[in-house]
Amino acid sequence: MNLFEDIPEKLPEELMTVLAEDSSVRIERIVSDGHASPDGFWYDQEAHEWVVVLKGSAVLEFEDGLVELNPGDHLLIPARRRHRVKATSHHEKTIWLAVFYGTLSD
Amino acid sequence: MNLFEDIPEKLPEELMTVLAEDSSVRIERIVSDGHASPDGFWYDQEAHEWVVVLKGSAVLEFEDGLVELNPGDHLLIPARRRHRVKATSHHEKTIWLAVFYGTLSD
Repeated sequence: MNLFEDIPEKLPEELMTVLAEDSSVRIERIVSDGHASPDGFWYDQEAHEWVVVLKGSAVLEFEDGLVELNPGDHLLIPARRRHRVKATSHHEKTIWLAVFYGTLSD
Repeated sequence: MNLFEDIPEKLPEELMTVLAEDSSVRIERIVSDGHASPDGFWYDQEAHEWVVVLKGSAVLEFEDGLVELNPGDHLLIPARRRHRVKATSHHEKTIWLAVFYGTLSD
């Protein structure tokens, strides 16, 4: 299996694919195509999330500012650190890899 | 931080960098430069390992055959599945991302 394959040409919504998981970890590929979080929506997760952008680009918004992510850029979003996806590239699909761990919710 | 940066030009040994961890998960970047497991050496891990090659190439050996990994190729190596790194590219550095989970040993 390849992270850069099996991506539909049209993505009306973000595509999330679970690559591996158990009770304490979930590894997901996320493909965005210009998607962003709805206005006023904030993620407030029970799990820690380590995330990397592998292709495309994205801007994450935190309560204290913005972080731009280009290919290879990674960061850890600790549980309960509120964040949202401010933007993803409109020029190409953005491929993220996210590892959720700690307290996983469904 | 960027997965493709902060890599020394010369790597006498594989470079392993822990990117995030807790009691049940450890996320590592591994950089190989033509490295392979010593003859006769097999990994036999207590943890599950999900691994992806992001740059370069590698060949993993299992007891039932070989698996070639090119950029984006990923696979899950369940705990106790014996494996070794048969080869990594001699033409460029190989950058792996590995997520160990389940029973972590040091």
